[in-house]
Amino acid sequence: MNVDLHHIDLNSDLGESFGAWRMGDDEAMLAIVSSANVACGFHAGDPTGILATLRAATAKGVTVGAHIAYPDLGGFGRRNMDVASEDLIADTIYQIGALKGLATAAGTRVSYVKPHGALYNTIAKDRRQAEAIIEGIRQIDPGLTLVALAGSPLIGWARAAGLAVVAEAFADRGYMPDGSLVSRREPGAVLHEPKEVAARMLRLVTEGTVPAIDGSAVRIEADSICVHGDSPGAVTMAREIRALLERSGVAVRSFMTPADGEP
Amino acid sequence: MNVDLHHIDLNSDLGESFGAWRMGDDEAMLAIVSSANVACGFHAGDPTGILATLRAATAKGVTVGAHIAYPDLGGFGRRNMDVASEDLIADTIYQIGALKGLATAAGTRVSYVKPHGALYNTIAKDRRQAEAIIEGIRQIDPGLTLVALAGSPLIGWARAAGLAVVAEAFADRGYMPDGSLVSRREPGAVLHEPKEVAARMLRLVTEGTVPAIDGSAVRIEADSICVHGDSPGAVTMAREIRALLERSGVAVRSFMTPADGEP
Amino acid sequence: MNVDLHHIDLNSDLGESFGAWRMGDDEAMLAIVSSANVACGFHAGDPTGILATLRAATAKGVTVGAHIAYPDLGGFGRRNMDVASEDLIADTIYQIGALKGLATAAGTRVSYVKPHGALYNTIAKDRRQAEAIIEGIRQIDPGLTLVALAGSPLIGWARAAGLAVVAEAFADRGYMPDGSLVSRREPGAVLHEPKEVAARMLRLVTEGTVPAIDGSAVRIEADSICVHGDSPGAVTMAREIRALLERSGVAVRSFMTPADGEP
Amino acid sequence: MNVDLHHIDLNSDLGESFGAWRMGDDEAMLAIVSSANVACGFHAGDPTGILATLRAATAKGVTVGAHIAYPDLGGFGRRNMDVASEDLIADTIYQIGALKGLATAAGTRVSYVKPHGALYNTIAKDRRQAEAIIEGIRQIDPGLTLVALAGSPLIGWARAAGLAVVAEAFADRGYMPDGSLVSRREPGAVLHEPKEVAARMLRLVTEGTVPAIDGSAVRIEADSICVHGDSPGAVTMAREIRALLERSGVAVRSFMTPADGEP
Repeated sequence: MNVDLHHIDLNSDLGESFGAWRMGDDEAMLAIVSSANVACGFHAGDPTGILATLRAATAKGVTVGAHIAYPDLGGFGRRNMDVASEDLIADTIYQIGALKGLATAAGTRVSYVKPHGALYNTIAKDRRQAEAIIEGIRQIDPGLTLVALAGSPLIGWARAAGLAVVAEAFADRGYMPDGSLVSRREPGAVLHEPKEVAARMLRLVTEGTVPAIDGSAVRIEADSICVHGDSPGAVTMAREIRALLERSGVAVRSFMTPADGEP
Repeated sequence: MNVDLHHIDLNSDLGESFGAWRMGDDEAMLAIVSSANVACGFHAGDPTGILATLRAATAKGVTVGAHIAYPDLGGFGRRNMDVASEDLIADTIYQIGALKGLATAAGTRVSYVKPHGALYNTIAKDRRQAEAIIEGIRQIDPGLTLVALAGSPLIGWARAAGLAVVAEAFADRGYMPDGSLVSRREPGAVLHEPKEVAARMLRLVTEGTVPAIDGSAVRIEADSICVHGDSPGAVTMAREIRALLERSGVAVRSFMTPADGEP
Repeated sequence: MNVDLHHIDLNSDLGESFGAWRMGDDEAMLAIVSSANVACGFHAGDPTGILATLRAATAKGVTVGAHIAYPDLGGFGRRNMDVASEDLIADTIYQIGALKGLATAAGTRVSYVKPHGALYNTIAKDRRQAEAIIEGIRQIDPGLTLVALAGSPLIGWARAAGLAVVAEAFADRGYMPDGSLVSRREPGAVLHEPKEVAARMLRLVTEGTVPAIDGSAVRIEADSICVHGDSPGAVTMAREIRALLERSGVAVRSFMTPADGEP
Repeated sequence: MNVDLHHIDLNSDLGESFGAWRMGDDEAMLAIVSSANVACGFHAGDPTGILATLRAATAKGVTVGAHIAYPDLGGFGRRNMDVASEDLIADTIYQIGALKGLATAAGTRVSYVKPHGALYNTIAKDRRQAEAIIEGIRQIDPGLTLVALAGSPLIGWARAAGLAVVAEAFADRGYMPDGSLVSRREPGAVLHEPKEVAARMLRLVTEGTVPAIDGSAVRIEADSICVHGDSPGAVTMAREIRALLERSGVAVRSFMTPADGEP
């Protein structure tokens, strides 16, 4: 008998400290999420800190993904960069390779790739850069899953190239009636109320829809939910989401976990 | 019948261009050496250039090693840095991991590790830093061979930790009667005459000795010879060494290559 | 009597070596040009190399400008980056300040600012980024001259903000009939024949026009000509240009030099 | 009549955030200290953040110094590096120049130089590196004051070279009977009790001694006291020190401030 009528993955960006600078509470988030998007050193993360995060993820049984980015430490990978395709390919391989090495040392492995920041937003709809990232993933390990924005063209491009893709929703973001995110320049782009956010995510998992900014129900097909952990308030919200999901019978587990009864 | 009465490995530092800046003639050197010490991005090398060098190494059947270094692009890894052991361990894993990823994409693999510059010199005799590098290698892949300075304490430390070690000599460096290198601050530290250097290396391979700076014969046990390729003159010298060795019946081949008749 | 019936400034990008990597022949170019666009460390240049170039410029009486760029050493400042205005302002001040400091140590001073690479091209027509660069210059030293692409909107924006502006032409680039540069993706974008290029520049200085790619005469108002020095061929071309100009009675001198007879 | 029977400077390291990473509470510390050691981008600090700190320092009338460091962002300038003298000279000029530029934009100026971290400790007693830093300061601005460890040989070297020097004590560090700091590897190296630390600093200012780790009185000649602000506890301690000093009639003011009655 399958007790998981519903299940969902929760992912969060981790390993983003750098040198003397701390960011986020990785230990707390690793107790909440099922997937850790671990920085690879291009927008954040140094080898020692990444390794510590990977060891903590191993200890808690959290699935690990490579959080690849543009080479822009000063801008935290949040600035668009017009990087040539051959450079994007090689940068992708380098970052995933480095994380694979550290994952081996930590007793775990890299299961998926989630691009970060400006790269994430750009490849959601820029085909040239998207193709380069897809090609880089394929060259180092075609068995890696790509995590992409629900509803974005990237999903189709990556699947056409043979990659497994997982679509994700953002817990704390408002949605337009067409399923796109409310622009950060508009009111309602970011949601701050933990209980409201948790209720939205429960509805997403159980009904497949969230309330759009105009109140209409918008269908979002997502197998993972991104939660943030870069402030105490964010950790609280993430914990609230997980608690409500579990109370409601939704299992939080990695999308890499085979469903009950599967081999 | 074993036709290789003698054989030796020639290694050289490659993949050291960075961004718009070129260094060395990797194509030329890959036709001369049997082992390529490929930069990993910490002292030199960007992902695109490293990948190109790895592809060329694959095409020419040259064995690949990780040329790991201190994180010091501005100083080309030539400045001593007092890096904490946990950072050295993680930096080692990160660099080797990144190169392994790029090697996979290039259709080859990383077979050995040769530290670069100041790190090379420091761990030859500084036990704390040496142990950290050894530990880093073991954590990512204990099957990797370490290339170390012939006669250095590092060789024993690494073997005691279970690593395979290959000792190397430097083609263009003068030797003291005790087998150490003539300091770069002294006359005779660097040799410039290709024919003389080639003759010394032939003697090293066939007799196991080189003439020390005082004319005495100094025994050097080395399974690899480091040749440089960072100037047209250096490439010429490397070519001269290989040519004399081959004319004299010495096979140039990677230390990873099983000897004839071995399984 | 004014013997300089015509005069022009020749500028070139210098100080672009970085660490162990060489670029260009600064000594040779400083004997040809009247203005040196000196790298400030963001796309190229390290403090030691920049200082050496500044000392050589001082010795040869060449005027110095700050060659500011996006923070992108790996991409040599050639990749567009969507940098926030407050960051562009501060980055501009930081780079000019650093160069001013080094110029003081070298016995010279910074007289102008010429943005580099992608930043140069972007601010030629992107008003937001242009305003940020102009603001940065004004905050550190409103007496600095801005060197900008002849015919670009930037010239008007900078003058409206109170900056002195010098328009420049590119010696080795083809021009469209409307005065814009032929795109690098099109044939005829880059000219390689030194004598042809020199003749074009002489015509530019004496008649104010160059032949466009369709053969028509296009008017270019420029007080400076950019010549390259990043290859032996480029140095030869620059030398040819200067030689022809001087043989033809055109004085090569910095736009900062007061004309004969002026106070 | 001079009401300041005693006065002292309090200095603190500021501007040490980098990109998305925060460090310290600059606003709070600028209300406590009389001198701000502002990061210059080599161990910490990005142009935008440095500029913000400088503007806040200007608003509060706090004197500004250049907190120069080794080029080691990943190690926060805390790792010894064997940098060549000509590089140290140029790096010093570059950093001070950049900060001077930003200070101009912020409506203030750079009055002194205080090396950071490993560079601070090294030049306190390593003559080669000390001479390079002194030379760099002299080349950009011989009017800058150097802040150095009380009792260190550096003080004499810098004065012999013509620099003004201010000796500093560390509020939260234990002292050996000979006036040197207790090593961080020993118990008693770092003091945590705000009231005790404040009392020690009052005694330092009024009597010229502090209790050494063995209870003996050790004479420390210092015109500035370094207080930390990198944690809420550190800010509290700094506030306590200032409060006790002021309650006890000790004026907190920059060593650059002329004494009452001076011109």
